[in-house]
Amino acid sequence: MKLYEIAKFLGCSGVEDTIEIIGMNTLREARSGEISFLSDSKYEKELDGTKASAVILPASKAHLLPSGVIALESDEPYMSVALLSKHFAKPVQSSNIEPVIGDGTLVYPTAHIENGVKIGSNCTIMSGVYVGTDVLIGDDVILYPNVAVYRDCIIGSRVRIHAGSVIGSDGFGYAHTKMGEHVKLYQNGNVIIENDVEIGANTAIDCAVFGSTIIKHGSKLDNLIQIGHNCVVGEHSIMVSQSGLAGSTILGRNVVMGGQSAAAGHLNIAPFTTLAARSGVTKSITKGGVYSGFPLMEHKLWLKLQAKLAKLL
Amino acid sequence: MKLYEIAKFLGCSGVEDTIEIIGMNTLREARSGEISFLSDSKYEKELDGTKASAVILPASKAHLLPSGVIALESDEPYMSVALLSKHFAKPVQSSNIEPVIGDGTLVYPTAHIENGVKIGSNCTIMSGVYVGTDVLIGDDVILYPNVAVYRDCIIGSRVRIHAGSVIGSDGFGYAHTKMGEHVKLYQNGNVIIENDVEIGANTAIDCAVFGSTIIKHGSKLDNLIQIGHNCVVGEHSIMVSQSGLAGSTILGRNVVMGGQSAAAGHLNIAPFTTLAARSGVTKSITKGGVYSGFPLMEHKLWLKLQAKLAKLL
Amino acid sequence: MKLYEIAKFLGCSGVEDTIEIIGMNTLREARSGEISFLSDSKYEKELDGTKASAVILPASKAHLLPSGVIALESDEPYMSVALLSKHFAKPVQSSNIEPVIGDGTLVYPTAHIENGVKIGSNCTIMSGVYVGTDVLIGDDVILYPNVAVYRDCIIGSRVRIHAGSVIGSDGFGYAHTKMGEHVKLYQNGNVIIENDVEIGANTAIDCAVFGSTIIKHGSKLDNLIQIGHNCVVGEHSIMVSQSGLAGSTILGRNVVMGGQSAAAGHLNIAPFTTLAARSGVTKSITKGGVYSGFPLMEHKLWLKLQAKLAKLL
Repeated sequence: MKLYEIAKFLGCSGVEDTIEIIGMNTLREARSGEISFLSDSKYEKELDGTKASAVILPASKAHLLPSGVIALESDEPYMSVALLSKHFAKPVQSSNIEPVIGDGTLVYPTAHIENGVKIGSNCTIMSGVYVGTDVLIGDDVILYPNVAVYRDCIIGSRVRIHAGSVIGSDGFGYAHTKMGEHVKLYQNGNVIIENDVEIGANTAIDCAVFGSTIIKHGSKLDNLIQIGHNCVVGEHSIMVSQSGLAGSTILGRNVVMGGQSAAAGHLNIAPFTTLAARSGVTKSITKGGVYSGFPLMEHKLWLKLQAKLAKLL
Repeated sequence: MKLYEIAKFLGCSGVEDTIEIIGMNTLREARSGEISFLSDSKYEKELDGTKASAVILPASKAHLLPSGVIALESDEPYMSVALLSKHFAKPVQSSNIEPVIGDGTLVYPTAHIENGVKIGSNCTIMSGVYVGTDVLIGDDVILYPNVAVYRDCIIGSRVRIHAGSVIGSDGFGYAHTKMGEHVKLYQNGNVIIENDVEIGANTAIDCAVFGSTIIKHGSKLDNLIQIGHNCVVGEHSIMVSQSGLAGSTILGRNVVMGGQSAAAGHLNIAPFTTLAARSGVTKSITKGGVYSGFPLMEHKLWLKLQAKLAKLL
Repeated sequence: MKLYEIAKFLGCSGVEDTIEIIGMNTLREARSGEISFLSDSKYEKELDGTKASAVILPASKAHLLPSGVIALESDEPYMSVALLSKHFAKPVQSSNIEPVIGDGTLVYPTAHIENGVKIGSNCTIMSGVYVGTDVLIGDDVILYPNVAVYRDCIIGSRVRIHAGSVIGSDGFGYAHTKMGEHVKLYQNGNVIIENDVEIGANTAIDCAVFGSTIIKHGSKLDNLIQIGHNCVVGEHSIMVSQSGLAGSTILGRNVVMGGQSAAAGHLNIAPFTTLAARSGVTKSITKGGVYSGFPLMEHKLWLKLQAKLAKLL
């Protein structure tokens, strides 16, 4: 799609440039030929260094762009991004390359492997598994029955994913109209699952809106866990059943999240943090330790608070 | 089944009527030829206007029935309903009509489409999807891998349902014997999903016991959500991951439920209500606003309470 | 595997015995020919009566073994067990015996039935269902679409399992290295689901590490529930949506767990206990009653506490 066509589609005036735009990305990640956006002023400092060819942003911020980067002025940049995202969404099938399956890999007859897939050696792809277009899978991987891996995801070696888990479903992102309607922000990123990860049954890991949701090597996720778009789960972290992460939250290495615990979005959780069962994190944690409760506090304090509360009775 | 046979089966004496009973329903929804029941005295006022041909109810309430409506007297009406519900349960396959698939619709070879199904145009029905008997699906719908839609459900246009989600599974309803056993109340209703709804991965939406569970147009549901039987999710509502509704709860339009929040059954939640993450609703909400906590309170009060609690330490 | 080979593999010196070891088990359950272990001193009293042929344990405890039971001395017995467990893990396919399907049982064409399976009469095994090696299923069972039953599980009669549920996925068990890596403890047990159990959609029930996870007769489990390895759910118990049990917890008969409630691992919960929605159990409950909150307390006390808290405002 040419830039002037995008500008016309979004109702941004004064843009006549015929450069071909091949994708959307964040200010930080965008490369030449991509379009980016500024919808939250806390990312304003990233305008200066962006490699994007064009940026959708409020008119009042256009002067902050580096020279050579074209501004598409919008009163509602996030809505503009949502509307445009549909044009860059990939269909579920888009490859002509027959899948490549490594030696010793068993694919059950009812598994569905799309084109463009590469699966390494000695894997087991069980019944009802779906492996989407262009997915890459390493060696010695087992996908138990009815696992679904959406297009473009990357799975390392010695990964085990139990029945019914979903890797790469759309993140939950919408722009909202003044009339209270929700306009889908198409989720064009993927999920990367590194080596030696195990994932339980009926867990859901959303793909990134741009870039990747990442589960780093050696992490272990239990059943019925929610991982939002663009999260990063650090190396050797453990998430116990029914815990969840909202979008863009980053766990350091060796974080432990107890059963039914959760973290809100856009947080950083320090390495070696342990979150007790049912705890709820709403602010970043800068120092490893044991935390409990909702609102979250040091586990020792939580115990003290419960003792105080018991005395009220 | 003729009414006298039902009476005999349930042990209700004195009923000889040979009218054919074709189904069960609530007092309010029942039509001529259907049987209804009174098991909770709070619905007593609905006896007067019922169109049911017969009603199962305690002997002491029989005089409240309109003339022409036949009473089946039972000491345990709810148990009688459970026992009878099995007779009206439909099998998973019951149609001879080959499915009708619209133009431009792609059905993957491992999808299973039962008889009686109608699917509109330009849909994508991916691998491992199950579409039950007599299901109706509109246009431009995508059902991602391994979605299951139980019989009789109705899905509008431009609906997206992510992998592993289940639409129309049985609601969780049982009558209990004095010995502590649970007798299944067969769930003979359906789910209606209106236009422009998106549903995440591994979410479960139960069918209604009678009538319909309804997800109204433009609503967006995230992953791993629970919707109990006979709920109504209002237009443009948003439910974030791992939230849940018990049976028969009604959300108004533009309700937002945060992650891991929940509402008990048989509640009404006012339009434009926002429930913070992890909040728990146990009483109806009559006025939109922002609420938190369990027990639920206004979000401002919850913040104040947390500040007070922090001072105890 | 011969015992001296195991000793060599685990680095336990001084064991030359050539006895064939055919499996691993707990001290209490092990039979002759099996190897057991002591990794938690609270099980020390079970050393005395064990029928195991050999036991992995710290050198300081070796003198507590009955005569004739061979000690494999390890500084890290749990890690030794994890390392060894892989050798006793069964592959997903290991039988040459064609499945036996009873009269009147309908198996959809996309269901996958492994060898060694026996299914009784009048069952319905719907599309996308996976039934693993050597699984036994009784009569009048319905497995809704995309249910997965892992190898060796046993399902009684008149059991209904709704779409997407997973029976027998690996329990969540790892030994941890000093460098913070997690070594999988292969889960070689099964799940037993007794007669007249109903299980909702997208629920996950893990197999036992050794022995069985058991759902006793007449129990009813709702959607999106987590059952950890080696749990026992008592007769006629009810678990409402999104509730969960960590490993090795035992519910007595007629326990009711409300929505989003949970219990930690290795607990006993007395018969006829009711746990309110969202309650969290961290200690065993010895007396039936109604409990609420997290930390858990008698429901009456919880109500009193909430009233006190409201007065703080």
